Amino acid sequence: MKALVYHGPGKKSFEEKPKPEIIAPTDAIVKILKTTICGTDLHILKGDVPEVTDGRILGHEGVGVIEATGSNVANFKIGDHVLISCITSCGKCEYCRKGMYSHCENGGWILGHLIDGTQAEYVRIPYADTSLYHIPEGANEEALVMLSDILPTGYECGVLNGQVKPGDTVAIVGAGPIGLASLLTAQFYSPAAIIMIDLDNNRLQVSKKFGATHTINSTGQNIVEEIMAITGNKCVDTAIEAVGIPATFEICQAIIAAGGHIANVGVHGKSVNLHLESLWSKNITITTRLVDTVTTPLLLKTVISKKLDPLLLITHRFRLTEILEAYETFGHAEKEKSLKVILSNDTA
Amino acid sequence: MKALVYHGPGKKSFEEKPKPEIIAPTDAIVKILKTTICGTDLHILKGDVPEVTDGRILGHEGVGVIEATGSNVANFKIGDHVLISCITSCGKCEYCRKGMYSHCENGGWILGHLIDGTQAEYVRIPYADTSLYHIPEGANEEALVMLSDILPTGYECGVLNGQVKPGDTVAIVGAGPIGLASLLTAQFYSPAAIIMIDLDNNRLQVSKKFGATHTINSTGQNIVEEIMAITGNKCVDTAIEAVGIPATFEICQAIIAAGGHIANVGVHGKSVNLHLESLWSKNITITTRLVDTVTTPLLLKTVISKKLDPLLLITHRFRLTEILEAYETFGHAEKEKSLKVILSNDTA
Repeated sequence: MKALVYHGPGKKSFEEKPKPEIIAPTDAIVKILKTTICGTDLHILKGDVPEVTDGRILGHEGVGVIEATGSNVANFKIGDHVLISCITSCGKCEYCRKGMYSHCENGGWILGHLIDGTQAEYVRIPYADTSLYHIPEGANEEALVMLSDILPTGYECGVLNGQVKPGDTVAIVGAGPIGLASLLTAQFYSPAAIIMIDLDNNRLQVSKKFGATHTINSTGQNIVEEIMAITGNKCVDTAIEAVGIPATFEICQAIIAAGGHIANVGVHGKSVNLHLESLWSKNITITTRLVDTVTTPLLLKTVISKKLDPLLLITHRFRLTEILEAYETFGHAEKEKSLKVILSNDTA
Repeated sequence: MKALVYHGPGKKSFEEKPKPEIIAPTDAIVKILKTTICGTDLHILKGDVPEVTDGRILGHEGVGVIEATGSNVANFKIGDHVLISCITSCGKCEYCRKGMYSHCENGGWILGHLIDGTQAEYVRIPYADTSLYHIPEGANEEALVMLSDILPTGYECGVLNGQVKPGDTVAIVGAGPIGLASLLTAQFYSPAAIIMIDLDNNRLQVSKKFGATHTINSTGQNIVEEIMAITGNKCVDTAIEAVGIPATFEICQAIIAAGGHIANVGVHGKSVNLHLESLWSKNITITTRLVDTVTTPLLLKTVISKKLDPLLLITHRFRLTEILEAYETFGHAEKEKSLKVILSNDTA
């Protein structure tokens, strides 16, 4: 089969690889129908995720059809259409049994990381019963690819951890796909205002279409002054950090109201300065989270009931065989005005 | 009347001051029966709290008797015995109406800070109806002085924000009065282990008597290794920071389990390094809080029902006229083996 393979920092190729086979009785083999590229894949290609080794097939998002199942797989049969979660969960360890699948002792984020991933014609999914979801009849499968990772990430790590409530004022720092996923899902809770902050005017315009009430371009604008003007000097109830650098975490600390919530979603490579000299008395909460994907069933219901439209996030479509071009488009987001790209498996 | 007066960094005297009078109809004048000294008073005397001005009477803890009431005070009458909360709350502003009295727009922590405090024969309490508590019949009034500040602080900022649950493993960094208040109130929730960490062996011995299951002297011991040994390499579910310096906040970050809670109680003067490069994916919560004293009624009930014995925290007793000596004893805690000191008003 064909697959996108990592060959060390800066090196990837679309090449022939052996088709995966059942290894454990809890495995399933899924023929990929649609997959996508994540910002994390770009991090891997920069060499930021050293545990990814030469020869690894990338990708942790997708929908597909069950091609084969191990003898212990009970919930899925050949021909079932399935949504692949970016988090593999055994369902049996201490963390899984408390719903913290992100820290599954036998899984967690392993697809396209520690085992071969979804940017291929076929993928092996361990613990299929607890790592795949049935796709409801009539659902748009392309839209559901957004439920593998970015929508649960924006929702769980941003909106739920940020405790967004009706009437609240929410700021989201970073209007990339993850920040936009938080923007879309924050609206479940009817906040009074959602302020998007980014450097890219195109993404700010997109944010407005997606429901942002205010936008701030962080280049050359005094963000704190802008936030004060918008909130009547009250600061924000929730600040969602969706970038992953010290500067954006600083913004969140500068604009948070007493009693507010800073929800970190960004993947950070460096430590940040935490201003406890002022925040110690401000009754704030700071949260971090690797997505657990515990809300995937909830999000599926919001898509079916049209409370959430994941198709908004898809800007470009390619065949799987065009994946190198898709990486270029996704990797130059500002120039290409790209958000998420969809890759369709030609052989499916 | 006599009072302990601040005269700028390093300078205090016990001197004659005018007896306070009713200014607003919501005020009460309280004759002090018992008061105490807080670590915060030492900070003020070092010059760390610059908004405290020359001439200010210090102190924000105490019990007393109502001496006079303004025309709008409904809940208290002359002769009532009352507990003074360190937090003054108007009960009417946006923050008070959501129970966040610490940030009351007309009060908050003002006693012995922005207005004259309790280390005196008499004190004026603004918003008496919502800032004082009736002392139940037969209660030990000396014990209740511990409910003005340190017990609600240890409980709300440490134990409640740290989400201590039955079976959990809790570490408390700092075994001073506030850390010990967290230790005492954490036991409401039956954690499996409470590990106290401090530099002072006397305080660690005291911690054992107060219910700590383990103690670690942080001088010359590898704290992370010790914690790993105690928890079977699991780290702790809750880490309570009860010191207020970067080194102790570092300890909390190094020993927290995935899914755990770091509850900051310490008053910090400097920013700290937050290790988001490792914590971003650990599903942790960090909280800060100035005590709201919303749990004072709850704590009163635990004292009356003997689930909590605040007398454990009192090591020394003085007359109010001996307050300068009491400051010496409290200020040299390691040498004097002092925790909280009680000052009794001779004229009462």
